[in-house]
Amino acid sequence: MARVKVSDIGEFGLIRRLAEKLSVQASGDLIIGIGDDAAVWRVGGRAVIATTDTLVQGVHFLAGVTPWRDLGWKALAVNVSDVAAMGGSPAFALVTLAVPPDAVVESFDELYVGLRECAEAYGVTIAGGDVVRAPVFSVTVALMGEAVMEGREPLLLRRDAAKTGDAIAVTGVLGDSAAGLRRLTEGGSAVDALVQKHLRPQPRLESGRAAIEAGIRCGIDVSDGLLQDVGHICEASGVSAVLRAQDVPVSDALRAAYPDEALMLACTGGEDYELVLVGTRERLEGLDVSVIGEIVPEAETLAQLLDKSGEPLTFPEAGWDHLRGGKSENGNRKSGKA
Amino acid sequence: MARVKVSDIGEFGLIRRLAEKLSVQASGDLIIGIGDDAAVWRVGGRAVIATTDTLVQGVHFLAGVTPWRDLGWKALAVNVSDVAAMGGSPAFALVTLAVPPDAVVESFDELYVGLRECAEAYGVTIAGGDVVRAPVFSVTVALMGEAVMEGREPLLLRRDAAKTGDAIAVTGVLGDSAAGLRRLTEGGSAVDALVQKHLRPQPRLESGRAAIEAGIRCGIDVSDGLLQDVGHICEASGVSAVLRAQDVPVSDALRAAYPDEALMLACTGGEDYELVLVGTRERLEGLDVSVIGEIVPEAETLAQLLDKSGEPLTFPEAGWDHLRGGKSENGNRKSGKA
Repeated sequence: MARVKVSDIGEFGLIRRLAEKLSVQASGDLIIGIGDDAAVWRVGGRAVIATTDTLVQGVHFLAGVTPWRDLGWKALAVNVSDVAAMGGSPAFALVTLAVPPDAVVESFDELYVGLRECAEAYGVTIAGGDVVRAPVFSVTVALMGEAVMEGREPLLLRRDAAKTGDAIAVTGVLGDSAAGLRRLTEGGSAVDALVQKHLRPQPRLESGRAAIEAGIRCGIDVSDGLLQDVGHICEASGVSAVLRAQDVPVSDALRAAYPDEALMLACTGGEDYELVLVGTRERLEGLDVSVIGEIVPEAETLAQLLDKSGEPLTFPEAGWDHLRGGKSENGNRKSGKA
Repeated sequence: MARVKVSDIGEFGLIRRLAEKLSVQASGDLIIGIGDDAAVWRVGGRAVIATTDTLVQGVHFLAGVTPWRDLGWKALAVNVSDVAAMGGSPAFALVTLAVPPDAVVESFDELYVGLRECAEAYGVTIAGGDVVRAPVFSVTVALMGEAVMEGREPLLLRRDAAKTGDAIAVTGVLGDSAAGLRRLTEGGSAVDALVQKHLRPQPRLESGRAAIEAGIRCGIDVSDGLLQDVGHICEASGVSAVLRAQDVPVSDALRAAYPDEALMLACTGGEDYELVLVGTRERLEGLDVSVIGEIVPEAETLAQLLDKSGEPLTFPEAGWDHLRGGKSENGNRKSGKA
């Protein structure tokens, strides 16, 4: 048997492979399983939303670069964003710390301050967790919440609900987080506005719920980068997307800091934790969002960016696949997520 | 400020310290927070139970010693045991794999086979998760389930419900898992019955539910070792315990394999995943358990083992605290758990 390494197939490849092994598993109470921002199942007449994310030292953050307090905020915030991307509300979290024996305890005190700040900001109660020994520090948060119900049916922002002719919109501005990370690794100050966007992401809980209220039923959060995350929606929905570069919202701060790369950072930089929302143009235009493109019938390219004259735009450095440690597959029809 | 290392205060010390930072957090829907086998909160008229556990390579298992398939089983089974220790039923799991890029993909295929075997055995649906890059492999499972309800009140096996005069009982036999681990690290065969008890723990879901039905409201699973886990109940309940060595149930296989150490392994070996149940003797005697001791008023020692003549018995090698990498504190009044 061939010995395939994880680096050969990448993070998304491994997720796909493992999801297939579990695909015949089902439960009458399960509403959304592997393949969306969070899982959803019925509990009595309600619907529980659950998601989990891990930040590993040296992979997702660097010690001495990311302050511990900001790391605590971010560890919970990225999970809150997954719940926002389902249109729900978070409620309870379990926090697992994997800690090396020679780690300094005060670091975790700081981490918990940030964790608690985020918990209070988004109405989350930290209900338990685990502490384990490990050679490298990591923090894993599992976050549970609830969906908005209409009678016995949960109203959700799903990845697989995009239809040809739908408009594509995004909340806020994109690319600031990636620019902030670049500043931070270049030794920039934590008070820099771009750096703050990277260290203290503000998940779009209100926007998710407003979208549900407006009748939107398709969405995702921007964690991997706009093109890649729109690609996830297209793959799950069996469609493709066309995006207009001039409509992608970019901050003045980003344009000023990186004039030549602002668009690239906005389209491929990850960790903005804004929401991509897909639905009819009328419904989207009632929300505080920027309409950036349309859903089109399934094509070879999942998400195609066009310049002003309608010519395709590509970024060789587009996206990022952690496990491959390099370029992602956002141009091809094979990405996935658990 | 003193730089306290994690190894100075141990796993339980770190959990206590962090739990204190979160102690003023509360929610009207939270029923059980940090400090029990699992967290419990209300969702409509029901009660959701949630727990999480992580297995780290080199800490909780050794590559090349524990087969990947058994590791998959165990990663879920230890969480099922936490739900059993609350008297509830598991339902949905999120699985996070932290994988080095040079790891062999087929290992994870095997891991998922075991994970699925356990999921099917205990009625769990794997609903999602995450794959991240990390320098060392670990698997984290977050498991959600439900409590048995009586009207709007959940019926639970809590750690903090032991009362002076209650009897203490345990399901099954103890020490086999620790003996199996010893065999395994000495190169023993995976078909050895003791090794099987270590590799494929069978959480006591039915016993937990039967205990609830019999009116028992206090319990814990044996993960750290009998004395230490009884100590967790005593600390949470503000009582102490007296256990009789001759009543601690030990298998014939364990007695035959390690005649001189069987009792020590049964009292201090971890990972048996049996249940300790505490309640009136009448209620316990209706269950398939061994009564091994009584709850007594709070004393200096949390859990005291007595020999046939009523003399205190101690094991210098008692218990284990992963983060300290050495002896635990089961004799002292200061252990805890998130």
